[in-house]
Amino acid sequence: MAYLERIEGLVKDRAAWPKEDMSLVLLVLDGVGDVRHPDFGMQTPLERAETPNLDALALRSAMGRIMPVDYGITPGSGPAHLGLFGYDPREVEIGRGVLESLGLNMDLKFGDLAARCNFCTLEGGVITDRRAGRPATEESRKLCKLLQEKITGIEDVDVIIQPGMGHRFAVVFRGPGMEEGVCDTDPHENAEPLHEAVASHPGAEKAARIVDEFQSRALEVLKGREPMNAILVRGIAERPDIDSVTDRFGLNAGAIATYPMYRGLAKLVGMNVIETGTSIEDEFNTYRDTRKDYDYHFIHVKGTDEAGEDGDFDHKVNVIQSVDSRLGMILDQAPDVLAITGDHSTPCCMKLHSWHPVPLLLHSGRCDVSGGSRFTEHECTEKGTLGTFHAVHLISLMLANAALLDKYGA
Amino acid sequence: MAYLERIEGLVKDRAAWPKEDMSLVLLVLDGVGDVRHPDFGMQTPLERAETPNLDALALRSAMGRIMPVDYGITPGSGPAHLGLFGYDPREVEIGRGVLESLGLNMDLKFGDLAARCNFCTLEGGVITDRRAGRPATEESRKLCKLLQEKITGIEDVDVIIQPGMGHRFAVVFRGPGMEEGVCDTDPHENAEPLHEAVASHPGAEKAARIVDEFQSRALEVLKGREPMNAILVRGIAERPDIDSVTDRFGLNAGAIATYPMYRGLAKLVGMNVIETGTSIEDEFNTYRDTRKDYDYHFIHVKGTDEAGEDGDFDHKVNVIQSVDSRLGMILDQAPDVLAITGDHSTPCCMKLHSWHPVPLLLHSGRCDVSGGSRFTEHECTEKGTLGTFHAVHLISLMLANAALLDKYGA
Repeated sequence: MAYLERIEGLVKDRAAWPKEDMSLVLLVLDGVGDVRHPDFGMQTPLERAETPNLDALALRSAMGRIMPVDYGITPGSGPAHLGLFGYDPREVEIGRGVLESLGLNMDLKFGDLAARCNFCTLEGGVITDRRAGRPATEESRKLCKLLQEKITGIEDVDVIIQPGMGHRFAVVFRGPGMEEGVCDTDPHENAEPLHEAVASHPGAEKAARIVDEFQSRALEVLKGREPMNAILVRGIAERPDIDSVTDRFGLNAGAIATYPMYRGLAKLVGMNVIETGTSIEDEFNTYRDTRKDYDYHFIHVKGTDEAGEDGDFDHKVNVIQSVDSRLGMILDQAPDVLAITGDHSTPCCMKLHSWHPVPLLLHSGRCDVSGGSRFTEHECTEKGTLGTFHAVHLISLMLANAALLDKYGA
Repeated sequence: MAYLERIEGLVKDRAAWPKEDMSLVLLVLDGVGDVRHPDFGMQTPLERAETPNLDALALRSAMGRIMPVDYGITPGSGPAHLGLFGYDPREVEIGRGVLESLGLNMDLKFGDLAARCNFCTLEGGVITDRRAGRPATEESRKLCKLLQEKITGIEDVDVIIQPGMGHRFAVVFRGPGMEEGVCDTDPHENAEPLHEAVASHPGAEKAARIVDEFQSRALEVLKGREPMNAILVRGIAERPDIDSVTDRFGLNAGAIATYPMYRGLAKLVGMNVIETGTSIEDEFNTYRDTRKDYDYHFIHVKGTDEAGEDGDFDHKVNVIQSVDSRLGMILDQAPDVLAITGDHSTPCCMKLHSWHPVPLLLHSGRCDVSGGSRFTEHECTEKGTLGTFHAVHLISLMLANAALLDKYGA
């Protein structure tokens, strides 16, 4: 059933589009979903917030709830966004190294192998501190610079190093034949020696050799620099080889996000990352300014997730109200399809991502108006004519609402 | 993606559990689901019943509806329970012989082949009564005893016989190489001769030989004992080879049930069957007494199904009220996760199991409170933030609500 599971077979040629300046907008309020909990007055932040503009839009929209990955599954940001973009997160995996390097604003090309690394302390042949005494980011940054100066390549493979926070950094290996399938050199506990990089299949033997050589050279460079005298290489993964949204859905897509990781995720699926500022207002202005340049915009608002992770209910309410008060900036541009949802829930009572389905509002001139009067978790359930469905189907609904899909069969 | 369809890859190691004395409870009111029907005042038994304790719990719980197997599929007790336990009943099959022998309280080991049998009447080489004139259970019991005395084993295979009701009994064949794949010796109509046991594949040839020999010897033993002078062997099946709930979900599980079949089903998935009495009160006391011994309890209440099968609406209401009035016995033990549902519906107007989705109430400190005020079929639909979903996903939601699942992806 690939034909229907992947709807690309039905996407109309651009020549058959109903209009030229099509604008589909996916507005992601990261982690916006929440649950009613006695600690917070049995209301969710969306219920508590005053959202006159979302309310008015809800009256004219279809609503439902999105399950990010599957029942009971709490997604990381990678799988959660892939689903919204139309890639089944149960099929496409994004390795830790890839996500880390995207989060550090590194560019990833097909065939690249990315790893996240720790500085660590090695004494008498065993690890004594997997985090090297938690160095300041500045310390780490200096040593990354030194490593990069001394190690620019191994054999025919370029080595690209990027510092992160504290003891963490990322490495991208760029060269022919760097296949995924190399185990961590990190023993994952203290009092153990560094592991060798082992290939899990013959195709990954070159990659294992390069990673081992990288680790050996790093040890030479760091010799005597206790406590940061060694490194651990972890989560070695290649950029997933997936079609772009252009190939798959015929869309010329632009991404507006303030955090590198979300820009990176958008790049993975072939979106063009658009320069923007740091505020919601900046992001919405960027949409206005580039509305005609793209068929599809992904706009990412981070504040809701941060507030949820902090358990800061009032701040989550405030971020929602900030979005609401600026919603007109998007609506003024008359997008043909506007989907407002989250990538996952981040309930304030849990201070973590969760599995709970996320509210969805879908507005277009062809939507099945649900009859709800508020964009909340519970209206999206009780009135939600879209039901509760897997995130991967959202793109199909967006394309259908834009009249970009052909009829199936005669 | 077996990884997510079967969520075992995400189950946390016990060392990473948020607490030690975890208690997940699955309370199954067998056949509790019903439908609104004019013959019964257009109310379901759950709607008619006075359930102050369930109502109060509903106000603080997530609700939804469970589809036991699939749209329009009416399950037997086996598939219905497997689903609730986290085993997809569309993939795992339990043969009739296995279910019959479990229902007769027989122990089944891996590699055992179980069959259900009839006493029947053979005249002039053909079956004249497939039920041997429906003998009293006592008559049948005597002949089973005789058969067991005369036939204790065939070749290197033990033969274990257990009488059932009326003309029915069960046989377990225990020995090496007893593979599933033997057809019934029952011609399934009168005026036909007994069939030979035929192997459907070469691996089942030994089993076919043993079954044939069992039937021949039984005929010798029963010679002259008309009308019970022959037997039919049917539903020959082996114990399904499935992981235990411990292997699959990391749970140490105990089962509390008054009927052998449900205890047997629990044993199939590696639950420990706990001794209990015959009443709901006994069962709930058993939970209290063993709360600390298990991470997960399956508690089975049979009365709702019996009332449904009898079409006895008032009795079904009474059983529901009995459970409600004792619900505090469970709540007092503060289970971390409590799921209350049925294995299937047994509508009073049908007097049979049915395919109608079953109401579900899921309570935990992390649940998405649905805002319903009653645990009924219709509140579970209209307010149900969990939606209507396949039973096999219940275990994922229970584990998620107990914080026993890792995040998926970074």
